Amino acid sequence: MNIYFACSITGGREFESAYQEIVAALKMDGHEIPTSHLAQSEVLENERSLAPRNVYERDVNWIKNCDVLMAEVSVPSHGVGYEIGFALNIGKPVLCIHQKDKRVSKMITGNSDPALTIHAYSDTEEAISQARVFLGSL
Amino acid sequence: MNIYFACSITGGREFESAYQEIVAALKMDGHEIPTSHLAQSEVLENERSLAPRNVYERDVNWIKNCDVLMAEVSVPSHGVGYEIGFALNIGKPVLCIHQKDKRVSKMITGNSDPALTIHAYSDTEEAISQARVFLGSL
Repeated sequence: MNIYFACSITGGREFESAYQEIVAALKMDGHEIPTSHLAQSEVLENERSLAPRNVYERDVNWIKNCDVLMAEVSVPSHGVGYEIGFALNIGKPVLCIHQKDKRVSKMITGNSDPALTIHAYSDTEEAISQARVFLGSL
Repeated sequence: MNIYFACSITGGREFESAYQEIVAALKMDGHEIPTSHLAQSEVLENERSLAPRNVYERDVNWIKNCDVLMAEVSVPSHGVGYEIGFALNIGKPVLCIHQKDKRVSKMITGNSDPALTIHAYSDTEEAISQARVFLGSL
């Protein structure tokens, strides 16, 4: 499947290693992840040189063309919140995953859209397992 | 006018006093702000007791009924990012304001929707002035 993986960039990178492990596992499973570079440590430096409009157009096109949007929502992010809404609005299935001890906005957890699934995870292995079960259910 | 004022709740409250001053000034100008309690210090405690679905439905209804959405985007927030997209999607004018030294997601700054205006401000007085000019232009 083509997966748009969304994670905090400007908002904070404290869970970068989790992003990387999740993305690596899903790529190993054979999925395409056009946003996989967003999980990498160089992302802030690489994206800084791009014009905002180009980033916006690129990311929106990737969402339009994905089979599913998967968002790691442990760290607050305007961009990821926007992307979740954008994907749901055009009928894409969305999986939000977050670390168990992180509180997530009620604008995400309170959304009753049946295309939206939310899971809390204890460790990266559990997050990957949740992602696989979600993808297998589509 | 009926203004939906959006600001970070779960994501962090470091600019709470700015939220309060902006909301107070706009209310003094005669505007209605159904979300004005979101700027108050008690918000975390008060909102905690509400079911996520009730918060989501309440806030979405407020956006549907507002004349304009005004978002303070200095602190990353999934909820505010979602609300900006939701408002633009139903044709509402949106003003995003942020402190000059804060970096804002390119999913916000790169959006070319003509209904979206973004301003950086140096102090709360300037933010209030930007809000008034924006409201006066509608």
